[in-house]
Amino acid sequence: MKILALDSSGLVASVALIEDETLVAEYTMNYKKTHSQTLLPMLDEIKKAVDLDLETLDAIAVAAGPGSFTGLRIGSATAKGLGLALHKPLIGVPTLEALAYNLYDTDKDTLICPIMDARRKQVYTGVYAFREHKLITVKEQAAIPMEELLAELNKKERPVIFLGDGVPVFKDMIREKCQVSYSFAPAHLNRQRAGAVAALGAVYYKEGKIQTPEEHQPEYLRVSQAERERAKRLAKNGKS
Amino acid sequence: MKILALDSSGLVASVALIEDETLVAEYTMNYKKTHSQTLLPMLDEIKKAVDLDLETLDAIAVAAGPGSFTGLRIGSATAKGLGLALHKPLIGVPTLEALAYNLYDTDKDTLICPIMDARRKQVYTGVYAFREHKLITVKEQAAIPMEELLAELNKKERPVIFLGDGVPVFKDMIREKCQVSYSFAPAHLNRQRAGAVAALGAVYYKEGKIQTPEEHQPEYLRVSQAERERAKRLAKNGKS
Repeated sequence: MKILALDSSGLVASVALIEDETLVAEYTMNYKKTHSQTLLPMLDEIKKAVDLDLETLDAIAVAAGPGSFTGLRIGSATAKGLGLALHKPLIGVPTLEALAYNLYDTDKDTLICPIMDARRKQVYTGVYAFREHKLITVKEQAAIPMEELLAELNKKERPVIFLGDGVPVFKDMIREKCQVSYSFAPAHLNRQRAGAVAALGAVYYKEGKIQTPEEHQPEYLRVSQAERERAKRLAKNGKS
Repeated sequence: MKILALDSSGLVASVALIEDETLVAEYTMNYKKTHSQTLLPMLDEIKKAVDLDLETLDAIAVAAGPGSFTGLRIGSATAKGLGLALHKPLIGVPTLEALAYNLYDTDKDTLICPIMDARRKQVYTGVYAFREHKLITVKEQAAIPMEELLAELNKKERPVIFLGDGVPVFKDMIREKCQVSYSFAPAHLNRQRAGAVAALGAVYYKEGKIQTPEEHQPEYLRVSQAERERAKRLAKNGKS
């Protein structure tokens, strides 16, 4: 089974190819360039480096949100385009699950809590754990205030590992308000990686959780700033 | 703190750059090309992609063995060359420790057992665990027969996660002879990654475990086939 995976849900752009139990290639970049400039050249670089014939793929996995609106659109559009052209199914992997999958087989009491900065003191987050080598969802991914997340975690009274681009943003708040034992994942495991999207995508694929390229939609979890402002304008105009 | 890391100890060639808690870039390839063809072009690719000024590095981390003799020489020679030219220290990270560092914060009872095929039914291996977010060495890395490793693990009566390029080679023997609960790490975490070398290298760097480029030597753990054959010839000639 050969899966190509893309993740451009956050600041990171990442492309990976796995074949069965082997990561054949992975290229990850967390740099100021826009994903529209990086993602396809990175894919092309990998394609040439490992002589990848795209026709031999079984599926295309993509980090399917939440995340940056533009980033998600670039990732999903690329995956849909490839899927349509190659007649291959897509696997939409929830961004937070793929992030949590970096911390494979953590202590069974430990909660894995990826946080992505969603602006306005909110985070895209979910809470996960491992049971018998499987990723278990303790709390489904959602956009919530960081304070609310910390209050929930405090009630659970279990150790927590935080990861994701929300960590540098909310480190001070975590130090101040987190009452359970907590830690932060190290640099090689604390951000999006297409390798994790591919590996979890392979699990999904075996469970039959695939989509046609036409069906696939990224999961934004909330409306964009442009839509919020439009709604506000409409409400204001309605009142006046 | 900015660390460039190289790993060409096995079938994988991998280059990564971390800055403090962030993986800035990583490029990994597990393909039939020789590392002498891939490692420097991959480094150059990353250098250009993230506008890396090599002068700004704090250190160069390298997977320092055991592993393929030629692969280790290519990795170490590249790291030494960079270190000498740039006047930067090197961090030699034991290959098996960096492999184990992929499985961060596993259940505290679980043993992490990377195995690399060392031919002649032997493996390069070590046994590790995590305690309070730190990698602990349960058994120092060594070249031993796979059967001996399995006998040792059976005596410890703790769950084991295997990873490394020895897994496909010894899977049948593990199934037959491993009497403790065991599992295999998934594709995104089961091979060498320069990101793990960099992250563990950063821990070493903070502990002052650095070397000059002149001091650095890869750790082969046993003599090469050429040396073994020479010794055999000499012994034979001595007898005749």
